[in-house]
Amino acid sequence: MKKQIDRKIPEPTVIRLCQMYRFLENLCEKNIQKVFSNEIGRQLGIHSHTVRKDISYLGEIGNTSAGYDVNRLKSHIYNNLGLDKTRNACIVGLGKLGQAIINYEQFIRGNYRIIAGFDSDINTIEILKARIMLYPSYQIKEILAKMDITLGIIAVPAASAQNVADRLISGGIMGIINFAPVTVKASDGKVLVRNVDLDGELRILSALLMMNEINLPIAR
Amino acid sequence: MKKQIDRKIPEPTVIRLCQMYRFLENLCEKNIQKVFSNEIGRQLGIHSHTVRKDISYLGEIGNTSAGYDVNRLKSHIYNNLGLDKTRNACIVGLGKLGQAIINYEQFIRGNYRIIAGFDSDINTIEILKARIMLYPSYQIKEILAKMDITLGIIAVPAASAQNVADRLISGGIMGIINFAPVTVKASDGKVLVRNVDLDGELRILSALLMMNEINLPIAR
Repeated sequence: MKKQIDRKIPEPTVIRLCQMYRFLENLCEKNIQKVFSNEIGRQLGIHSHTVRKDISYLGEIGNTSAGYDVNRLKSHIYNNLGLDKTRNACIVGLGKLGQAIINYEQFIRGNYRIIAGFDSDINTIEILKARIMLYPSYQIKEILAKMDITLGIIAVPAASAQNVADRLISGGIMGIINFAPVTVKASDGKVLVRNVDLDGELRILSALLMMNEINLPIAR
Repeated sequence: MKKQIDRKIPEPTVIRLCQMYRFLENLCEKNIQKVFSNEIGRQLGIHSHTVRKDISYLGEIGNTSAGYDVNRLKSHIYNNLGLDKTRNACIVGLGKLGQAIINYEQFIRGNYRIIAGFDSDINTIEILKARIMLYPSYQIKEILAKMDITLGIIAVPAASAQNVADRLISGGIMGIINFAPVTVKASDGKVLVRNVDLDGELRILSALLMMNEINLPIAR
């Protein structure tokens, strides 16, 4: 099924297809059955041409002059991007943010399971009540292999984030989501890192607001 | 100074310029003085042509055949996107995530100040020790005006997120960052919303990993 794709899809295209998938999920929940590329484009802030080009990477999806069939396009992305594959994740850092993420887990709609938590403070591990297994950080490498964990979420303070990333990578992790307020790098180019960045989000909002303010006289 | 921009910059360009700014900050910290558009493009996952086009929206920056001067490009973005403007922010929801974000605030490098927190539970507000002023959620509208707060961060459970967003908007908020695991919409099109989405990040990682796995035989 996944062998339909015969060329490498560029990373930005993969990211946009995932964003489209989320939008299509929302449309499904509202029982909307058809969607046009310009509507998708408006939602994602990209040109409809880019939407069609991104979708074309996945192979034939049928005539689009009457719009895309929402359910069909959703399944098309789901199957071709391998979103059907179940992946195990762990969280490192069981402070407030880590605990918030563990609680958040019930809202995850995809095939991802947070099944282990790590903290360098043994006290935290002993006291904390959690639905998942908790271990001291020095066991990361051992537990990753034992529990087939391929995704890691970092929720430690900035100062130890890179250290934790390195440890996850040496344990064979394949993807990292970093919530620590510092950019984390994978020395091994095969490990994917996504930095979630409040500072960056605030900057983007601030810049977009400024654009709105500059344009106010024109808008009046 | 901000009047240099005489045309509306598209939203995706503003977002990419903010991401470039972050990359330039990192280069500055490493004392790197020159950068080429293809290096910026590689970092952001876009074509170098798009990098040059995005930067050109800000007006003249000088000859680029020898690369961009890192400091000059950084200031150029900073001034033109209005990142020098100080903005006050508030946080709604003082559970684990909200508390984690308040602690995170010390790492914010931009001109943003989280100066107020809200929670619907009066007990939480009385018990919690925080560096910022805490208020019950019913006071949102009143406090936003009094403290000149233009950015709101939502850290409440999914079920109340849209309700909180509506209250912030009716209080005159201009931008929202939503951490609740549900997409929040601004009925008023002038308010900007950024949804930070762990579910979406996991999906993107999963899809990118699948692409790597599919391409493994070719890479060998």
